[in-house]
Amino acid sequence: MKTHILQETNWESVKNSLYNVAILPWGATEAHNLHLAYGTDTILAEKIAADAAEIANREGAGAIVLPSIAYGVNSGQMEIPLCMHMNPTTQLSILRDILYVLDNHEIRRFIIINGHGGNAFQPIIRELSLEFPDILMSYVNWWTVEKADKYFGEPGDHAGELETSAMMHIRPELVAPLGLEAAEEVLQRAVALVAPLVLHPQAQREARGLDLAQVGTVGQRVQQGIADLTAEDDE
Amino acid sequence: MKTHILQETNWESVKNSLYNVAILPWGATEAHNLHLAYGTDTILAEKIAADAAEIANREGAGAIVLPSIAYGVNSGQMEIPLCMHMNPTTQLSILRDILYVLDNHEIRRFIIINGHGGNAFQPIIRELSLEFPDILMSYVNWWTVEKADKYFGEPGDHAGELETSAMMHIRPELVAPLGLEAAEEVLQRAVALVAPLVLHPQAQREARGLDLAQVGTVGQRVQQGIADLTAEDDE
Amino acid sequence: MKTHILQETNWESVKNSLYNVAILPWGATEAHNLHLAYGTDTILAEKIAADAAEIANREGAGAIVLPSIAYGVNSGQMEIPLCMHMNPTTQLSILRDILYVLDNHEIRRFIIINGHGGNAFQPIIRELSLEFPDILMSYVNWWTVEKADKYFGEPGDHAGELETSAMMHIRPELVAPLGLEAAEEVLQRAVALVAPLVLHPQAQREARGLDLAQVGTVGQRVQQGIADLTAEDDE
Amino acid sequence: MKTHILQETNWESVKNSLYNVAILPWGATEAHNLHLAYGTDTILAEKIAADAAEIANREGAGAIVLPSIAYGVNSGQMEIPLCMHMNPTTQLSILRDILYVLDNHEIRRFIIINGHGGNAFQPIIRELSLEFPDILMSYVNWWTVEKADKYFGEPGDHAGELETSAMMHIRPELVAPLGLEAAEEVLQRAVALVAPLVLHPQAQREARGLDLAQVGTVGQRVQQGIADLTAEDDE
Amino acid sequence: MKTHILQETNWESVKNSLYNVAILPWGATEAHNLHLAYGTDTILAEKIAADAAEIANREGAGAIVLPSIAYGVNSGQMEIPLCMHMNPTTQLSILRDILYVLDNHEIRRFIIINGHGGNAFQPIIRELSLEFPDILMSYVNWWTVEKADKYFGEPGDHAGELETSAMMHIRPELVAPLGLEAAEEVLQRAVALVAPLVLHPQAQREARGLDLAQVGTVGQRVQQGIADLTAEDDE
Amino acid sequence: MKTHILQETNWESVKNSLYNVAILPWGATEAHNLHLAYGTDTILAEKIAADAAEIANREGAGAIVLPSIAYGVNSGQMEIPLCMHMNPTTQLSILRDILYVLDNHEIRRFIIINGHGGNAFQPIIRELSLEFPDILMSYVNWWTVEKADKYFGEPGDHAGELETSAMMHIRPELVAPLGLEAAEEVLQRAVALVAPLVLHPQAQREARGLDLAQVGTVGQRVQQGIADLTAEDDE
Repeated sequence: MKTHILQETNWESVKNSLYNVAILPWGATEAHNLHLAYGTDTILAEKIAADAAEIANREGAGAIVLPSIAYGVNSGQMEIPLCMHMNPTTQLSILRDILYVLDNHEIRRFIIINGHGGNAFQPIIRELSLEFPDILMSYVNWWTVEKADKYFGEPGDHAGELETSAMMHIRPELVAPLGLEAAEEVLQRAVALVAPLVLHPQAQREARGLDLAQVGTVGQRVQQGIADLTAEDDE
Repeated sequence: MKTHILQETNWESVKNSLYNVAILPWGATEAHNLHLAYGTDTILAEKIAADAAEIANREGAGAIVLPSIAYGVNSGQMEIPLCMHMNPTTQLSILRDILYVLDNHEIRRFIIINGHGGNAFQPIIRELSLEFPDILMSYVNWWTVEKADKYFGEPGDHAGELETSAMMHIRPELVAPLGLEAAEEVLQRAVALVAPLVLHPQAQREARGLDLAQVGTVGQRVQQGIADLTAEDDE
Repeated sequence: MKTHILQETNWESVKNSLYNVAILPWGATEAHNLHLAYGTDTILAEKIAADAAEIANREGAGAIVLPSIAYGVNSGQMEIPLCMHMNPTTQLSILRDILYVLDNHEIRRFIIINGHGGNAFQPIIRELSLEFPDILMSYVNWWTVEKADKYFGEPGDHAGELETSAMMHIRPELVAPLGLEAAEEVLQRAVALVAPLVLHPQAQREARGLDLAQVGTVGQRVQQGIADLTAEDDE
Repeated sequence: MKTHILQETNWESVKNSLYNVAILPWGATEAHNLHLAYGTDTILAEKIAADAAEIANREGAGAIVLPSIAYGVNSGQMEIPLCMHMNPTTQLSILRDILYVLDNHEIRRFIIINGHGGNAFQPIIRELSLEFPDILMSYVNWWTVEKADKYFGEPGDHAGELETSAMMHIRPELVAPLGLEAAEEVLQRAVALVAPLVLHPQAQREARGLDLAQVGTVGQRVQQGIADLTAEDDE
Repeated sequence: MKTHILQETNWESVKNSLYNVAILPWGATEAHNLHLAYGTDTILAEKIAADAAEIANREGAGAIVLPSIAYGVNSGQMEIPLCMHMNPTTQLSILRDILYVLDNHEIRRFIIINGHGGNAFQPIIRELSLEFPDILMSYVNWWTVEKADKYFGEPGDHAGELETSAMMHIRPELVAPLGLEAAEEVLQRAVALVAPLVLHPQAQREARGLDLAQVGTVGQRVQQGIADLTAEDDE
Repeated sequence: MKTHILQETNWESVKNSLYNVAILPWGATEAHNLHLAYGTDTILAEKIAADAAEIANREGAGAIVLPSIAYGVNSGQMEIPLCMHMNPTTQLSILRDILYVLDNHEIRRFIIINGHGGNAFQPIIRELSLEFPDILMSYVNWWTVEKADKYFGEPGDHAGELETSAMMHIRPELVAPLGLEAAEEVLQRAVALVAPLVLHPQAQREARGLDLAQVGTVGQRVQQGIADLTAEDDE
């Protein structure tokens, strides 16, 4: 029983505790390359939230980790099977309900530990801050807190070295040792995705901003990923 | 890695599988008497969903278990700290987003495994059935499927013998061995809750239907629970 | 002029009265077998609300009956012509507006007299109870208050003996003396509805809960109903 | 049993009929001076809808009258007890549900018979016309169809000669014979309402448009109403 | 820099001013006959709001003109290219946000200067008046304030003499000198629009109320407009 | 008359044109330091949209600039008078209505030219992309397209060198020549804002991400701004 994880604690413990800050891990359920689990974003957000709360509580933070939400914004990947999508307006409704309870119990600090690049909590927080003026709300995209390139040659932003290594560390059974065949398939798919972009004029690519940039990055990362996988396969 | 649990499987597996039915465990996060974890409803719903999917898949059901939702309807318990509440209209928004994805991928059977008495999915399903006419939606309140009183003297409907035993079976570390002192407190609280009801006229009690009935049942169950706890404490 | 029925009273009376509780009859507009009026659920709810208010007011209850709502949840019967449907979220919006007015006039007790099995007011009340914490809200499914099987051999739950008898009592002109031909048609339709269910595995049937159960009951009730109708026709 | 009133007809009749146009009476529940029933607007709209449908059906119109809605827009009268208010957005939700059913059954003409000046169906129809492009929607404010001043010296627009006479004709038991005392009270109240307006600059009065105009009219009408009531009392 | 136009003033000025009333110009973006700019309704509403504020401020009104909204209700003209439409419920959301800010800064008088006949702000104001009880809201349809027929032979209600003259006065570069050819096309189009109406029974035309009436007026006005245009072309 | 600006063109022109892409300028109405107009964000977005459309149309782009929206997300500045705020969910409703019209007229490319850092269109576009799958939507934060630090020593992100220079270029009458006194006030205000942040632990500052970072940047920029203003004042 961990008293800083709400799902694992009980009333006997809760009624004798004082909470100052509530932490909500929010991930996504989506394909992470071929080899990482669909739950990667959620699992990592949960892990970071739990460990951060435990450390902070040693200093008397009074933190409690709420049950995570495993559904993120993924409308751009509707063609990938079982890549789940949740609309931002639904995320706002969920947060409104949660904040209502926290406000009622006078827990006035709230942090979302976000594990998925497609989630954008800033506009939601800005809207809800008017409804709950007494609560200080914030969010952290955990993968941006520390510069990953201090540790990795090619951290990547989705199912790259950073996420793969993190999952190998905490849930190794959910990382598949994919081989040469899979690598080839990844390469072919990436090419099919990237090719049409090459044909578009530069202006259009810039206009779409992060989305196109992300796909571009995927192309480069995939090539590195295939090299890694192949090396790994040879062992 | 379990291929019937979406969070634990990967794209390599998903793209080679055929899914016919999606299962969504939905619980709540609330006090369960003094001794069971706040996550009890969700943990049990997840367990039942996972095991049912595994067994059904041996017969070729093609079932996949979606990530659970741990927030249920609890507006009647706003005075209990960290008893989380989610509005039915928010639940409808969540389900609409999920069904949109399933419909898009032509998974046309959907079952909610409900673990919390306060959740009422029937009206929500009735509303969404017009938006997704091709999906057969249903829900199961797992604790009503099998008559628990065949196995327990006093199964109870919330944190009673049935739930306590189930949690002892699958997550024993989340069941606290509460003693005499706790039992006394439970008793006093129950009396404080039930007493005002005694003063109300009969007609009013009947009008509130299930809600008041539930509170009445809690009163009786608590007395039995105290007896059990006391006995347990003596051992 | 009845002073306990809001639609029939006037300002002269209202401004000299003190109201403590508002009663809202809510029915549906749907086919009731072949022989009862589409308005049966609403008409019966209105009758019970009016009579209950009149009796209670003799004891000083201060009850006022609001205009009824004749639209209920019927998404499962979209193939029956002019079987009207109202979404639960629309019902919530209607109730929010009504409660706003009552709260403004400090009428803090509110009872829905429900006449239609498809309406589910408990989740709606749970959501609205947070918005109107000062109002005690409740609902009654009138047909469950008294055990009908003390009076009827086969009360039924929709257009059965109980509803038919009740309508014969208060609005006999809205009960049609249907004959053998109609009975045969009812039988054939029931068989067509029930037959597919027989082919489904038991697990699926249980999963749908009340909905399938209701259809099952209809099958049995229809056979009894035909017997009754035939007998009635012979007289 | 009237087959053109949906609440009074039955399935046996409905399934053998062809409907081309659905008519929805929509009123309000509000004080109508001191002497007319709160339900006046709804009762008159129902009466006109029913009679119009009956006459049109003799020519083969295929009209059916849906159950009326008795809640109108009345936010400007929140200080009058039990003057019920329904928001325009709630009215839109109700109409969306009704149109969904009509569209489903291919009834593609829809008319609202409006009995309350505060209801404004034009913007709602304009919004819904995009969602239901196949349905021709319209509304009638019944009191504007025929020039009432051809028949009355001072028809008035709310609880005036026209409405009072109409109610005397169809529901005389709901018209109270109020006397001198009531008339005096009406006068005092009207003065209290109108006086502050006299103090406002002209520009402001014009800016509020219809609302202020209406109040102005009420002032004049009330004086006439008092004269009428006094005369009536003397008989 | 005009200090009564919010977009043109700055913080240095705003923080030293006291505002009592906020004015919102609201127009539409739609075809105005063949010769007037799509922005006509918005441009005229902005002009009237600015001039009115300037004059009123000389008397110490403390008025500030908010940025205009150029999107109006136009669902009935979806076949005309780039005739933009905004739903009334969206207009309500916009106004709610604006009123929230005004209420927060204690500016408690609010006037919409409406430039488009399809906008209906009365029901919206009635709904929002309950949410912002401290703000006095009103609207003006500017073209109804002064009787235009005192000045014009045929003022018209849309792109007629009044609007054309007003635009000639303030933005002459946005009025096109259309010739005989255009006039002929307008005539043919008008006939095509009006003709089907002639075939409909009278009852139907009355039922649609203002909408049909408006189309009828368009027919007459177009003929006059063509005469005007032709005359103008000859000069 | 500019045919690429919808508000300035007319039906005669529109019906003879073919449009491929619609451009929507979206700004905000807020204080821009003491010296720039509240409309700065909107004015610059309109200017860039208009010029870009004009240039692109020479190559046959078929672009049309829609009327701008002058209300942005500003919930974090509610204490600054007349700093207008619009919720992201309202922005979504506005965009849904606009996209409905574009889709109806088969204009399937849509670009928002954003002029305000607080607006976040990516999550809104992701939600609407499922409703309008045929429209390619994108947005540009114009100030990020070209690296401003190639041209300015300290471009700033809000009312800094870049925005001030841009406004001097296109609307010089809306830039106030503020002097030493104003500069001092800005400094004092900035210090009062920044000081509390110095006291907070580092972890908290990082958690709030962009918001806190932005405030931090404001502090630095303000000092530079004061130096600039002072220098400017000396000339």
